[in-house]
Amino acid sequence: MKSQIKTTFSNFFFEYETPRQVLVKNKRVAVVCRIIQMGVLAYIIGWVFMYEKGYQVVDTAIGSIFTKMKGVSFTNISKKERIWDVADYVFPEQGDSSFVVMTNYIVTVGQKQGKCAELPDGKNKCNSDADCDEGKYKRMGNGHMTGRCMNETSTCEIYSWCPVEDDRKIPDPPVLLTAENYTLFIKNSITFRQFNVVRSNLVESVNQSYINTCLYHPKTDPLCPIFRLGDIVERSGLNFSEIARVGGAIGVLIDWDCNLDLSIRHCKPKYEFYGLYGTGKNGDKEEKPSLGYNFRYAKYYVEDAVEKRTLMKVFGVRIDIIVHGRAGKFDIIPTLTAIGSGVGIFGVATVVCDMLLLYLVPKRDFYKNMKFKHTQILEEKPDLPQSKTERDLPKE
Amino acid sequence: MKSQIKTTFSNFFFEYETPRQVLVKNKRVAVVCRIIQMGVLAYIIGWVFMYEKGYQVVDTAIGSIFTKMKGVSFTNISKKERIWDVADYVFPEQGDSSFVVMTNYIVTVGQKQGKCAELPDGKNKCNSDADCDEGKYKRMGNGHMTGRCMNETSTCEIYSWCPVEDDRKIPDPPVLLTAENYTLFIKNSITFRQFNVVRSNLVESVNQSYINTCLYHPKTDPLCPIFRLGDIVERSGLNFSEIARVGGAIGVLIDWDCNLDLSIRHCKPKYEFYGLYGTGKNGDKEEKPSLGYNFRYAKYYVEDAVEKRTLMKVFGVRIDIIVHGRAGKFDIIPTLTAIGSGVGIFGVATVVCDMLLLYLVPKRDFYKNMKFKHTQILEEKPDLPQSKTERDLPKE
Amino acid sequence: MKSQIKTTFSNFFFEYETPRQVLVKNKRVAVVCRIIQMGVLAYIIGWVFMYEKGYQVVDTAIGSIFTKMKGVSFTNISKKERIWDVADYVFPEQGDSSFVVMTNYIVTVGQKQGKCAELPDGKNKCNSDADCDEGKYKRMGNGHMTGRCMNETSTCEIYSWCPVEDDRKIPDPPVLLTAENYTLFIKNSITFRQFNVVRSNLVESVNQSYINTCLYHPKTDPLCPIFRLGDIVERSGLNFSEIARVGGAIGVLIDWDCNLDLSIRHCKPKYEFYGLYGTGKNGDKEEKPSLGYNFRYAKYYVEDAVEKRTLMKVFGVRIDIIVHGRAGKFDIIPTLTAIGSGVGIFGVATVVCDMLLLYLVPKRDFYKNMKFKHTQILEEKPDLPQSKTERDLPKE
Repeated sequence: MKSQIKTTFSNFFFEYETPRQVLVKNKRVAVVCRIIQMGVLAYIIGWVFMYEKGYQVVDTAIGSIFTKMKGVSFTNISKKERIWDVADYVFPEQGDSSFVVMTNYIVTVGQKQGKCAELPDGKNKCNSDADCDEGKYKRMGNGHMTGRCMNETSTCEIYSWCPVEDDRKIPDPPVLLTAENYTLFIKNSITFRQFNVVRSNLVESVNQSYINTCLYHPKTDPLCPIFRLGDIVERSGLNFSEIARVGGAIGVLIDWDCNLDLSIRHCKPKYEFYGLYGTGKNGDKEEKPSLGYNFRYAKYYVEDAVEKRTLMKVFGVRIDIIVHGRAGKFDIIPTLTAIGSGVGIFGVATVVCDMLLLYLVPKRDFYKNMKFKHTQILEEKPDLPQSKTERDLPKE
Repeated sequence: MKSQIKTTFSNFFFEYETPRQVLVKNKRVAVVCRIIQMGVLAYIIGWVFMYEKGYQVVDTAIGSIFTKMKGVSFTNISKKERIWDVADYVFPEQGDSSFVVMTNYIVTVGQKQGKCAELPDGKNKCNSDADCDEGKYKRMGNGHMTGRCMNETSTCEIYSWCPVEDDRKIPDPPVLLTAENYTLFIKNSITFRQFNVVRSNLVESVNQSYINTCLYHPKTDPLCPIFRLGDIVERSGLNFSEIARVGGAIGVLIDWDCNLDLSIRHCKPKYEFYGLYGTGKNGDKEEKPSLGYNFRYAKYYVEDAVEKRTLMKVFGVRIDIIVHGRAGKFDIIPTLTAIGSGVGIFGVATVVCDMLLLYLVPKRDFYKNMKFKHTQILEEKPDLPQSKTERDLPKE
Repeated sequence: MKSQIKTTFSNFFFEYETPRQVLVKNKRVAVVCRIIQMGVLAYIIGWVFMYEKGYQVVDTAIGSIFTKMKGVSFTNISKKERIWDVADYVFPEQGDSSFVVMTNYIVTVGQKQGKCAELPDGKNKCNSDADCDEGKYKRMGNGHMTGRCMNETSTCEIYSWCPVEDDRKIPDPPVLLTAENYTLFIKNSITFRQFNVVRSNLVESVNQSYINTCLYHPKTDPLCPIFRLGDIVERSGLNFSEIARVGGAIGVLIDWDCNLDLSIRHCKPKYEFYGLYGTGKNGDKEEKPSLGYNFRYAKYYVEDAVEKRTLMKVFGVRIDIIVHGRAGKFDIIPTLTAIGSGVGIFGVATVVCDMLLLYLVPKRDFYKNMKFKHTQILEEKPDLPQSKTERDLPKE
């Protein structure tokens, strides 16, 4: 018993099995087969390994963004000169990855709580008091109806912040058209956790003196982290004067595609710009509702013991900065998985060739007998030596 | 030499090797084997290819979100009528993907820098001045202790914004319970970089006139981008009046699962709602500490040359809008990888059948001899023809 | 015809093919082959299955974060005592995942629109009016030039918010150095959509009484969701007093790595801290431009019917909280893919051994003839039995 285990064990270690094969000398099948095999090999080496870098394990980046706008605008509205700086036109102020640069606005000064007529903008018409349900609120309205229909405006009286904002006419040209010349500075830090790599968009070639003077340009200054607002809008395929008037949203994509098998210095960001929902490229208004971008905010104050507010309807360029990072590095697992998968596909090549050989070639029966050995005759006849010869060497 | 290379080369191209196989006529093993193989085939075709779409390469979306609330509330607190509109109750104002709708608040008017007693809320008791370390700050306290213990309140005197906010009693019912009827408009734009596809949640069937009147409903209006706040809360499994009182956080998930092999028109968003940390579904308070959602903010002003502020403790519904996008498209690499992997699993089927054949079937030794050819006798004995017969056809 | 199909069908079901193999009794090749095969097996079982958990399907988390700072600071600047609480020093106020804690500031009180001299900080020098283009704006300037060069400061006169902010000297030590003792409370909720699992960082062992007293420490309290600001900064490798002075950005990573085949209770967060772009670890200032973090914001007010503002240049610690979640769960597809791939790699092992056998071993021609059966002689000579013997059993 013991010696039997020993034999089995030594057999296992001192002999190995390898498949017996037929070398088929059929030019047509062989050439087809070799071409398929070389195609598979070329695909595995060329495409999977070299082009798609199948030998690399991939990690996606975790990114952080800090932004800073620079620039001032000067306006002269009804002889009132005014300068606008960063603290005036950026929302929110703390340098988020998503922010709005005000380019146009409608201001309603000195609103206070009270009763006044709804805005006669066509959506809130009334003919009699019956059209104005007391205490109700209309979806397009600005306040709670008191139940009266005002004769002067043909709209319901409402309890609201009065006077009601009149946003029927958007200033054209936009008040802060010079916003085009503002500059945006982006700091972006990314982390590839799996590879323990931290990287900033201020790469080696971007030093302080370069930052002081550069301006992003896709050809000449592709790594400069300072962007002109007008350039961002134009490169996203939108028109600045139109977007400045009604507002719009722009995506700035910082794209990192790093091969960490090379030096980290080659790991550089690429900036891309595209319009998000604004006035579209094709200008097809039926397909793209809700153009523009705006929001309201209020500054509150107390005057003569009455709480008042200045309401601003702000139109502007909303910038959403998005980081998309991907790094690859050689790793044994994806390499072996790709090889294993490739060997599997090699098997497919053999299966295809065998089908050709066994079903399409004229001498297919001969090849079938070369390839296959049958067992059933043996089970019936006990005179093995002879039957064996018969099976293995068919008389065709 | 040259001719030898030529021969090797022509041999390589004009002949191909295919494994020799035994056709085993054993019904039981054969049936088991075929069942396993067909299972593998069914798995590869049915599951990997059709259900999991293993022939597709997958990309995840980059999303941008813009939100806009609509609606007004009317309150009448101690005979003071007040209207609340968007500029009053949304934080922050510029339409972020994460924002808070105020539903309840505690206001402390006219705070100014000075000395006053700490709030007697049980956490800040003192018996003598010794309990109040001068210049220290307690974790639950509102300011720096001056070193005195106040008799009236049995709490330390502190240097702070005075009077100290008293947030022991949260208004019930919540002040802005009508927030339930506010509507939320969501604009969502997604980009699948790999496929160069940009898509908005305002899909083909959502035009301007539809937006003007629709309201989201999972069955009847699943694509309407306008949501009633009360509906969002209820659908997330929470109770509006409770969440309105103490605050809570809701996740709104915009889920895109697109098959880009079909028309882009079928790529539509699905909206889902779930409670984030608020008053939980099971109501098990031991397991879920820190219920509610609130934050403080201050409005500063100057009165009689003294800086003052109005402090608001805001309770509200915090909405976090999250985009989860995934698109698949046919690609040759995952297809071949899936096939290659499948062929590999086919190999496993053969291995299992061979084990059955060689170890479990009664005639296993016969099959062993059919399958395997030995080499060792050859190495010892030079009379090959005879030994060969012996080996190949054992007399058992 | 019908019976022929029946035969083919029954043949298909009642017989199966298995490759014929040679058992090679060559110790050296066999041992090499077994070692390679066992290496592959060990790799598949040990590495792919156990270490990398290749049998699991993986989902990444969708996360939501809510933050709350606590703590007060006391300052005494030019004999003016002042207390700073959360509403004063956190931007924005509503508890976002990315926020700024003010630690230092430069305040410019009472700015109003008007004409004044540009700041003489060396970047805006002028010698004569010719250096100051009327109506132009300098990249480093604060307003529109009026065309005059001021003698007193040797800088251009500008139309701006006057007086211009003087940020040449940053307060040192920072005004709010005690910010070190502020605490940050983080609520984090994650969702693994694929597995329908929702999880909060307030795990089972973190109950209300624990939260009331605990403070995060990587060794003793790794699950406490309350962090001391000073600790966060120190653990990220930065120096608090330096970062407090000029500002800096810190990433707080909440890392979830969950094995959902185990109990959900083992799915716990891990907190990590790292500096984002601030004063770097290596202190190499040439490599890391744009140190520090600051932004400006303004509080507007009306005094004597003139609009004025108080401008704050805020330096602070910016905290970016990032969630990185990954959960794995057993699934049949990755399991079979890994097995299939592994079988493929097994095939590679056989190929390597065959190469050894057929090209390197001395008796290679003998083994070649054992493994391969040729077809070309057959095609030429009709006397099969004899030729077969010749081919199969070479005389070496």
